[in-house]
Amino acid sequence: MSGPATPSIERSDPDIQSMAHAIRFLAVDAIREAGEGHQGVPLGMAEIAATLFARHLKADPQNPLWPDRDRLVLSNGHGSMLLYALLHLAGYDEISLDQIKAFRKLGSLCAGHPEIEQHAGIEITTGLLGQGIACAVGMAVAEARLAAEFGSECVDHRTWAFVGDGCLQEGMGQEAISLAGHLRLGKLAFLWDDNRITDDGDTLLAISEDIPARFRAANWQVIEVDGHDIAALDAAMDQARQDPRPSLIACRTVIAKGIARLQGQRGGHSAPLTDADVADMRRDLGWNHPAFDIPRSVYDDYDTVMTRGRTEHALWKARLASDPGRAEFDRWHSFGLPSDWSNVLADLPHHFANAPGPKGTINASGAVCDALDQVLPELLVLCADLEAPTGHKRSRAGFGVQNRAGSYVHCGVREHLMGAMACGIAAHGGLRPINVTYLAFADYERAAMRMAALMKLPALFVFSHDSIGVGSNGPTHQPVETLAAYRAMPNMRVFRPADVTETAEAWQIALEHLKGPTMLALSRQDAPPVCPARSENLSRLGGYLLREPDEQRDITLIATGTEVALALQASETLKAEGINAAVVSLPCWELFEDQSADYRNAVLGQVPRIGIEAALRFGWDRYLRPEDAFVGMPGFGASAKAEVLFDHFGITDTAICNAARDLLQKH
Amino acid sequence: MSGPATPSIERSDPDIQSMAHAIRFLAVDAIREAGEGHQGVPLGMAEIAATLFARHLKADPQNPLWPDRDRLVLSNGHGSMLLYALLHLAGYDEISLDQIKAFRKLGSLCAGHPEIEQHAGIEITTGLLGQGIACAVGMAVAEARLAAEFGSECVDHRTWAFVGDGCLQEGMGQEAISLAGHLRLGKLAFLWDDNRITDDGDTLLAISEDIPARFRAANWQVIEVDGHDIAALDAAMDQARQDPRPSLIACRTVIAKGIARLQGQRGGHSAPLTDADVADMRRDLGWNHPAFDIPRSVYDDYDTVMTRGRTEHALWKARLASDPGRAEFDRWHSFGLPSDWSNVLADLPHHFANAPGPKGTINASGAVCDALDQVLPELLVLCADLEAPTGHKRSRAGFGVQNRAGSYVHCGVREHLMGAMACGIAAHGGLRPINVTYLAFADYERAAMRMAALMKLPALFVFSHDSIGVGSNGPTHQPVETLAAYRAMPNMRVFRPADVTETAEAWQIALEHLKGPTMLALSRQDAPPVCPARSENLSRLGGYLLREPDEQRDITLIATGTEVALALQASETLKAEGINAAVVSLPCWELFEDQSADYRNAVLGQVPRIGIEAALRFGWDRYLRPEDAFVGMPGFGASAKAEVLFDHFGITDTAICNAARDLLQKH
Repeated sequence: MSGPATPSIERSDPDIQSMAHAIRFLAVDAIREAGEGHQGVPLGMAEIAATLFARHLKADPQNPLWPDRDRLVLSNGHGSMLLYALLHLAGYDEISLDQIKAFRKLGSLCAGHPEIEQHAGIEITTGLLGQGIACAVGMAVAEARLAAEFGSECVDHRTWAFVGDGCLQEGMGQEAISLAGHLRLGKLAFLWDDNRITDDGDTLLAISEDIPARFRAANWQVIEVDGHDIAALDAAMDQARQDPRPSLIACRTVIAKGIARLQGQRGGHSAPLTDADVADMRRDLGWNHPAFDIPRSVYDDYDTVMTRGRTEHALWKARLASDPGRAEFDRWHSFGLPSDWSNVLADLPHHFANAPGPKGTINASGAVCDALDQVLPELLVLCADLEAPTGHKRSRAGFGVQNRAGSYVHCGVREHLMGAMACGIAAHGGLRPINVTYLAFADYERAAMRMAALMKLPALFVFSHDSIGVGSNGPTHQPVETLAAYRAMPNMRVFRPADVTETAEAWQIALEHLKGPTMLALSRQDAPPVCPARSENLSRLGGYLLREPDEQRDITLIATGTEVALALQASETLKAEGINAAVVSLPCWELFEDQSADYRNAVLGQVPRIGIEAALRFGWDRYLRPEDAFVGMPGFGASAKAEVLFDHFGITDTAICNAARDLLQKH
Repeated sequence: MSGPATPSIERSDPDIQSMAHAIRFLAVDAIREAGEGHQGVPLGMAEIAATLFARHLKADPQNPLWPDRDRLVLSNGHGSMLLYALLHLAGYDEISLDQIKAFRKLGSLCAGHPEIEQHAGIEITTGLLGQGIACAVGMAVAEARLAAEFGSECVDHRTWAFVGDGCLQEGMGQEAISLAGHLRLGKLAFLWDDNRITDDGDTLLAISEDIPARFRAANWQVIEVDGHDIAALDAAMDQARQDPRPSLIACRTVIAKGIARLQGQRGGHSAPLTDADVADMRRDLGWNHPAFDIPRSVYDDYDTVMTRGRTEHALWKARLASDPGRAEFDRWHSFGLPSDWSNVLADLPHHFANAPGPKGTINASGAVCDALDQVLPELLVLCADLEAPTGHKRSRAGFGVQNRAGSYVHCGVREHLMGAMACGIAAHGGLRPINVTYLAFADYERAAMRMAALMKLPALFVFSHDSIGVGSNGPTHQPVETLAAYRAMPNMRVFRPADVTETAEAWQIALEHLKGPTMLALSRQDAPPVCPARSENLSRLGGYLLREPDEQRDITLIATGTEVALALQASETLKAEGINAAVVSLPCWELFEDQSADYRNAVLGQVPRIGIEAALRFGWDRYLRPEDAFVGMPGFGASAKAEVLFDHFGITDTAICNAARDLLQKH
């Protein structure tokens, strides 16, 4: 439970209806000024939003980054003016009237859809339907885990999500509902804008299910309420705060309420507004203030209600100051790494090589994750029903209703949700999300991973079964184009480590990298150690000479992942024939691109080159010239044992040697 | 309703329990032989499968491609041995004992997961959870639409899907449930293997919702039954066939039933089997037959029950033979195009240019789609709540409960389902699915589109809002890496047409292409006509010289989509400066790669080159050498009007000219 309301709220009686109307008019004025935008949500949810801020949300606009603030997610992100209007009115200084007047213009904080700017009160980027509520589940999990660690004196806040019909039609919405109910995330509430209109028109065009029943089936509390009745909304939010289950407040609303021509209509969603619409709305609602002119009394009312949050913040600060866990709390919340944290990784390659068990790079990653459990307890591992084949649980306890301290979340077969949860957890702060599944399933969470990249969140996505090394599960389960598809994504670092050493190095780089997500593509099949023991993290270079020939280089073999071992074998064979092959390991293209052109040219060499990767050539032309060769996949894979497939598709040391001889003959 | 049971089924009383046990033993023998596999499903669903074949499924194994057969989808595809055993026993000759003995081996029809081979009875590729049931919704829609067209004399069959817990945890599963209930697809039934075990162990680790209640909320009939009680299963399937709603038959089962050591356990899913397991199972179930040795009586029972399907097939053939719609029925089902079908496209560019309304290539695509409505009534358009901004409905009627003849399916905000439905519709046959949404949402349906590519299905994916041309909706809605991510996908043709002419050409090529999917990336913003009127479809070449300079070429400008117009403008400016620029339009890289190296080299020219695309450079290095230039996006987009963004990111004719001058200076 959040703390009790402070006396100040009793003293004055804010005019919540006017607070709501102020949202309405700021929204339509901004949309009219921009010439486009989505008025449906801010007009339909104005009372909901005003009531939430007036009575329930715990926030201190002067300290928007306060870790124990309630989190507010606008999952129906197209209604962004609702959020900007609210933030402005509530006193988030960065959302000035000038910013609002620049709604949807280049450089404005008030972008078409909310884009994460937490210093301004925008908690998370939304706009792709479903992502917001799935992120909200991640935030609520983070809160529960942190509360278990630091106690409710330091961590006790809620996550509120504004939700549209679209979010609840998206499959990931159901994944969110199902897991939130299962995990009994009682501090999570969805405020559903049940306006029965989508872009196409009446929701009945495409949906006729009983949505509240679906929530109830997933163990949510469901409260149905008139979304324009402030007292009823207030009571519903109270009820949500009392219940140990997550709550759906199903708010029956009228889309675009206030604009006579559009309200309750399909056009209410985002049809262009006219001057007459806005003038009529001023008349109908008795709002006698010019555009962008909000009466002082409304600002005062917002200021008054925000006193509750300011007071709570002050009390919290005092509690934290005397809390024995303060230093660790601060470290977690600044994503700081303890000094010497990476020492546990120093001997790991040696131990891993000598320990029993499978030796894929996914297993190496599991060993790293396990070694870090004690050193970095802020890691929160999420896995989509693949505990055994990915091996990242080990000593970790499961996070659940009975154990909020667990650091391993069984997400079920819900990859898309898991991807968005990672965004929500990272955006929440305090914890470092580590997602684990197969690389073939990366497509399921791609939209969420793109959000992590767009938001530059420090999330780590660990993928196993990264190639035809999957074996007999066949082409559905064999990524061949997935590496390229993610290398194409801005801000996403893609690592494909060659062995345990590079796997540990990739983890280190990923955890030190706070300005964007990282993904690891790891092997199911054994990856023999190829890197000599070394004290320097060479993976930081993205690519480096793993083996330099004693004599002048004739050819360069450039490989990633398990194919680095093949390249080394081939170089041995070629050496016996008098061909001097350099072997380059290229675990991370993005980091390699960050190096100087001179370094890159020196590594790749001005000699014939062969790219080697059990994947498609697409993208490799960055490093291969038309006259160079590629040893990899020609298309989708097949069902057979891994070793049969590598042979079948010609990804072998023999094939590399043949390609090398061919190239040098032509040269 | 399917036709009545024929008398033959009454004559003999098949031993369905033995028919089920035969599945069990074929499955475990094959898995033991392969050394790996998933026994949980075939052992747990043996009675369900045997009962379905014995009493309900309409199929004729000697004519596996019979268009009016029931469709059977194994959505829990890891249980593939269930399907192979069934098909073998039922008399699908291609699934021989030798094929089963080669389970999970290279080249076997019995791959790790089912891979579409309809001539052998494998209806569709499955294995990625959720895809199968979503495809099944597409199949059921196809059946209903075709029945409305050709009458129930010619089209009257059911879709049965075997479903695991994972399929129902995936969000796309809920999308499927929701839309199937909404569309009242009464001929669709899910047979849920409710074994309460997933790979991680007890389903309670990750789910505690009331799944039947979720189906009921979506207007399904739910029948709960003991999944090993043949009489009860038979009655439940009867009940499913009687009800106008889609039906969930929730079958309470014991995973791996029959193997004492594993049944009901986590290890039942796929733990390696031992010889002792198999020997104990033979003893416990009283099955005194060697491995792969199925008693004649079981084969006979299967043969007997399949008589029902054979008879129905014969009756159907007779009905179709005398049906006036036969020729059209055959044409639709062979994906044949009427002669001269493309004539309607000849004048379309002219008409489109002169008609009022917006002039984006998405609008051109809408005009094409509309023009084809009468010519190719087998087109079925699916759209995810973006009717107005994509404009592909026009004169089409909505497909719904009241109008099964509609050729436009309002899919709601459910892109992943929509992608899989396209697979299901194309795999079903008879209809050509056209999916329509924004390119930014392609990530949501990527896993399904990959299935279309893997299966080489003739589906068309139309995407609008293909770049920063989206404008103020901002970076969430602006694809910058999506073209590259799909160009990386095998078997997927990616078109980015420059104008209405190339859009119509792309449609023509896509509809003529039966061996794989096609996607179109189309503009929201106006795309002025750049192609002169022409009778030859030059887009077939993938890339071609749109403007050749009069004098010797100095530089080549290579562009796609709306950037072709910019390249043309730049070439004019450069010409005035005495620089001879050739302009290449490159609408489809995959088709360009199919041309000879000589042709490609001639088009691209051995002069400096500039690639121009409002997207990232990733992938372009195939056509650009390190010394060449690229005018495009540096990363994610921003929120502002389209014209502001093109200017801001330097994707203008001026920028192209500057790049050209720079290149030529260096040269």
